[in-house]
Amino acid sequence: MPQIEWIAVDWGTTHLRAYAMSADHQVLADAQSTDGMGSLAPDEFESALLQLISPWLPELGDIPVLACGMVGARQGWQEADYLNVPTEPVVPSNLTRVSSLDARIQVSILPGLCQTHEADVMRGEEVQIAGLLATQGAEFSSVCLPGTHSKWVRLAQGQVIRFSTFMTGEMFALLSEQSILRHGVNSNEWDDTAFLSAVEQAVAAPEQWLSGLFRIRAKGLLEQMPANTARAHLSGLLIGAELAATQSYWQGQRIALIGEDNLIEHYAAALQQLGIDSESFSPKTMTLAGLSDVYQALTKTRNSHVT
Amino acid sequence: MPQIEWIAVDWGTTHLRAYAMSADHQVLADAQSTDGMGSLAPDEFESALLQLISPWLPELGDIPVLACGMVGARQGWQEADYLNVPTEPVVPSNLTRVSSLDARIQVSILPGLCQTHEADVMRGEEVQIAGLLATQGAEFSSVCLPGTHSKWVRLAQGQVIRFSTFMTGEMFALLSEQSILRHGVNSNEWDDTAFLSAVEQAVAAPEQWLSGLFRIRAKGLLEQMPANTARAHLSGLLIGAELAATQSYWQGQRIALIGEDNLIEHYAAALQQLGIDSESFSPKTMTLAGLSDVYQALTKTRNSHVT
Repeated sequence: MPQIEWIAVDWGTTHLRAYAMSADHQVLADAQSTDGMGSLAPDEFESALLQLISPWLPELGDIPVLACGMVGARQGWQEADYLNVPTEPVVPSNLTRVSSLDARIQVSILPGLCQTHEADVMRGEEVQIAGLLATQGAEFSSVCLPGTHSKWVRLAQGQVIRFSTFMTGEMFALLSEQSILRHGVNSNEWDDTAFLSAVEQAVAAPEQWLSGLFRIRAKGLLEQMPANTARAHLSGLLIGAELAATQSYWQGQRIALIGEDNLIEHYAAALQQLGIDSESFSPKTMTLAGLSDVYQALTKTRNSHVT
Repeated sequence: MPQIEWIAVDWGTTHLRAYAMSADHQVLADAQSTDGMGSLAPDEFESALLQLISPWLPELGDIPVLACGMVGARQGWQEADYLNVPTEPVVPSNLTRVSSLDARIQVSILPGLCQTHEADVMRGEEVQIAGLLATQGAEFSSVCLPGTHSKWVRLAQGQVIRFSTFMTGEMFALLSEQSILRHGVNSNEWDDTAFLSAVEQAVAAPEQWLSGLFRIRAKGLLEQMPANTARAHLSGLLIGAELAATQSYWQGQRIALIGEDNLIEHYAAALQQLGIDSESFSPKTMTLAGLSDVYQALTKTRNSHVT
């Protein structure tokens, strides 16, 4: 079995995922837990990490650990910088070293991205974008990363030019689980037609979006609209509103979608409805490609310094 | 002291309010509790009501009780009809009689309103509109009732022509208390400038509304935007989005606002910013005027039947 050369860590608000990597960037082992940034105090991060990766550590020597995501937020393990756009999504010289108690690891956190003109921030997605650039070259000029906080990103010449964040996933959770609408949208089924017509409706008349929400409730009361239709309609209104706001990102572009399967299927269908082609990528694959790219750049720098 | 002739009841989702009324519609006594429709099973409504009004009841005789609001919902005491718009806001011949166990009361629930073309419903606000018509005549052609679920209503010749509901208050509560934004908007202070500029922004570019939400978070992180500014900005975005969707209700109109003082102040300021005048009315006064109007019509009918 090849030797573990470094460890890749994807540390978000709700999850911690670690990967033992070989010198040629193959995943030799992986582990995950729900010790996300959101549930940890600053002095609990190291032990949360060691709990997952201890079995991979040699008794002697220090293994580089490259971490990205909310672990670098102000409430994280240690605050990492933001790089201001336009910038390459990841700049290997800009890592934040964390002083760990355990001498077997050498932890660095990648910077996030920020935008000052139209204030915005990201932590974690920039590594997936780096992975996309590393594996797909200049194939895509726009990237959409759907999720709790969806990101739309414009790329040019290997740089992130601008980006915009939407609370689409969080709004869907709040509205479907905690608002008056929750009574009518509780279903595991889907309704493609209702979804796509709501997308079209929101893109065509975004100013009417807010009045569409309560109408879901009224249709439940007056027309006995089934829950699967109501749920798909709500999702379509929210994703449609996001698409209405991001025309400058997708109009005439070919889009890379990075996200979980079931979610990006909906985004791909919504974009298709608007005549836009997209290609889908796994966030795990892109994160590992991005972190591997950084690790490789660091190794090259180190070797060239030695030479 | 004048005799109690009837009892007015305003029974919403979270509150129950009862008023002992004289023959000339003066409030002789009032009482309230948090026994709203939302917290009661069908067989608990009568005792919740009696708990408030028992002291007002004579030993003999039955006192008419006129109730409006969510008490008439499917999950209420007894389901009352919806009147389909266009219609007068309240039609006295259309009351739903509730069979009470206590012979001293004779309870009737007023119908709500529904709209089938663009599905919508209301229960309770229609009585406030009837009160506005009874006290102000044809002075206003549009009414706005801000709240958890804001209503916009077009009137013509004493009828409700159409209406539209917005989950503005509920969205503000969800976003300010439960979303990622909650960290940055916790303040008892206000910021008029931030509020009004957010209103203008949302009305001018409603399709960008959704991207404005996360920007509140980003501005907190990058620019240390104070919580009072963030809170007012969030409120302005939501009320602005409601105004963007209701241009056909307020453009060139003089608006009657019916709602709680602090809330309608914000709506009045937002409308003023768009060059629209409004006049404010208390929901309690309008509800009592509306119910009194119904009671009077019932009495007249009864008397004319006797004659």
